[in-house]
Amino acid sequence: MASVEAKVFPIEALREFTTRVFLHFGVPKSDADQAADVLASADLRGIDSHGVARLSCYVDLLGEGLINPTPKIKIVRSTPSTATIDGDNGLGLVVGPQANQIAMDMAERAGSGWVSIGNSNHFGIAGYYVMKALERDMIGWAMTNSTKLVTPLWGAERMLGTNPIAIAFPGKEEPPIVIDMATCTAAYGKIEIARRLGKSIPQGWGIDNQGLDTTNPDDVVAGGCLLPLGSDRERGGHKGYGLAVMVDVLCGVLSGANWGPFAPPFALRQEIPARSVGKGIGHFFGAMRIDGFIEADEFKRQMDDFIRTFRATKPAPGTNGPLIPGDPEREAEKIRSKQGVPLIMPVVEELRVISKKTGIPFS
Amino acid sequence: MASVEAKVFPIEALREFTTRVFLHFGVPKSDADQAADVLASADLRGIDSHGVARLSCYVDLLGEGLINPTPKIKIVRSTPSTATIDGDNGLGLVVGPQANQIAMDMAERAGSGWVSIGNSNHFGIAGYYVMKALERDMIGWAMTNSTKLVTPLWGAERMLGTNPIAIAFPGKEEPPIVIDMATCTAAYGKIEIARRLGKSIPQGWGIDNQGLDTTNPDDVVAGGCLLPLGSDRERGGHKGYGLAVMVDVLCGVLSGANWGPFAPPFALRQEIPARSVGKGIGHFFGAMRIDGFIEADEFKRQMDDFIRTFRATKPAPGTNGPLIPGDPEREAEKIRSKQGVPLIMPVVEELRVISKKTGIPFS
Repeated sequence: MASVEAKVFPIEALREFTTRVFLHFGVPKSDADQAADVLASADLRGIDSHGVARLSCYVDLLGEGLINPTPKIKIVRSTPSTATIDGDNGLGLVVGPQANQIAMDMAERAGSGWVSIGNSNHFGIAGYYVMKALERDMIGWAMTNSTKLVTPLWGAERMLGTNPIAIAFPGKEEPPIVIDMATCTAAYGKIEIARRLGKSIPQGWGIDNQGLDTTNPDDVVAGGCLLPLGSDRERGGHKGYGLAVMVDVLCGVLSGANWGPFAPPFALRQEIPARSVGKGIGHFFGAMRIDGFIEADEFKRQMDDFIRTFRATKPAPGTNGPLIPGDPEREAEKIRSKQGVPLIMPVVEELRVISKKTGIPFS
Repeated sequence: MASVEAKVFPIEALREFTTRVFLHFGVPKSDADQAADVLASADLRGIDSHGVARLSCYVDLLGEGLINPTPKIKIVRSTPSTATIDGDNGLGLVVGPQANQIAMDMAERAGSGWVSIGNSNHFGIAGYYVMKALERDMIGWAMTNSTKLVTPLWGAERMLGTNPIAIAFPGKEEPPIVIDMATCTAAYGKIEIARRLGKSIPQGWGIDNQGLDTTNPDDVVAGGCLLPLGSDRERGGHKGYGLAVMVDVLCGVLSGANWGPFAPPFALRQEIPARSVGKGIGHFFGAMRIDGFIEADEFKRQMDDFIRTFRATKPAPGTNGPLIPGDPEREAEKIRSKQGVPLIMPVVEELRVISKKTGIPFS
């Protein structure tokens, strides 16, 4: 990213602008605050592709009436520890936090809570949700399906989203382990950055529209595909494909949402799927009380030991040794909450366009 | 495998021999049957490294009194949908099925059931457990931690097991999707086969004992490590590492079992860990009633559509297109249940040694 021009904004400025934009499109105040909080969390944690960089997509869909600004989410089916939720075509940034809350409340009573959510839209970063569970001494799980970008192993077309999996475990004195990972090899955002910089991409990230390996980011963008985690058969591409299928079924099929290549697009410019097999996209949240298994304090002390043991791993040559999952995002948050969030100029331009359209000031 | 000499045995012969061997070591009849069934399932499904090829490890540990042949498993803590189980140092092949049953029974009542099991031993193939859930119209999850073999990304020493994740989804007319995958790039068994054949291994499978990439299988065996799924930073090695950590925490830390580099060895020849941080190794099972989310019949019809849609993916050049997770194992089972199980000669030799030691005939 070093050679891409960027402008730095205090997180509070971004949060306020985002909130006011959602309000402008008829989202109620508390929901607008909530949605802005999810996006701000991505920007703070350095997951630039999932923060205000996506605001124009949400705005386009709200503006076209394709997202319901005032959803009433409904529990359509439930047992003491499971539920299916209809998101009423609301913002995923609003539906997601409410559904996650339902999972955690269920866990409070039954030990664990598992909800599959359909008729929703993109929910931001999966990590946001699992960190909420930490505040209640729970282990949180979050997944979502999304618009097709990834090919199955041995395929030559986009059939699956980047379908992330997140889970978090608290420490006592140590910061938590926060795992938040797409099930493809590399994020689409990295392809776009390589393209902007005129650089090639590593082998194993993508294929062209004929299904052939490529190191040219243009090929991936022009109808090619991302590869699942593991890339090829020899290096376990069938495993990343399996994980993406798991996420798709838990989020899509189980909830009655669209799955696979039929997940609806997130941006107006994207192709409309050939058919509809459900409503919107889907998410899946889980929450487990730690003390449903072991005293929470004992668990956290063991996690401190675990984290310190892994930090003490003998380092590979040329590295400082293994990180703990969540380290890079925590580090970014520390810096950006003080120094602000750097936005690349194309994103700044998009926000200025939104500002002009809505009359909400943005410098 | 083509150039490795093998001898073919009917599955019933292997099952009977295995059962009698477990009986010989004091395992009660129903448990011996159960344990033999798990091993037979691996042999039938073509997961050769987890079937009778491991019998000598179990036998060694039983013979040395390091595994309890008559465990009384105990629920040490529970809520309506979660439990922690102490496996009483029994065979994982016996403790696993009982704990999985507890998870499914809990799901019957509460919608879902989640159990973390400590004080156990190796439980065979994770896929065995999740297929049991299918028989009850449930979605089953299974994980286990295991003896260290895998380095964290940027590490240069063995810190994690191959820590598999399994989950299965039923179809209606289509066979089920069965995902069962280690969280490392390649199985240790593949390193051993390459070594036996004097072949090199692909880049991305392993490192030597200095932490350097290697394509020589001897380097991995001689104190090197397997790499996590994704192999290196560019191709998402941090993701495979994250998944392995997730499995280790859910199975090990949550249950009070040993975790990370402290998981006890599975074979007498393996190094004893520097310290003990719990009891035995750990597993994690989940079961969710499908009708806790959606009518089971409707779910299965959607899964048929899902499976057919993915089979119809445009194929990559030189392939027949994507498989559905579980296809190769199902194909192996079809062939081997008729034609028998091919065992490589070193495994046949090990079984002959067991035969001589126990007086149980094996040809």
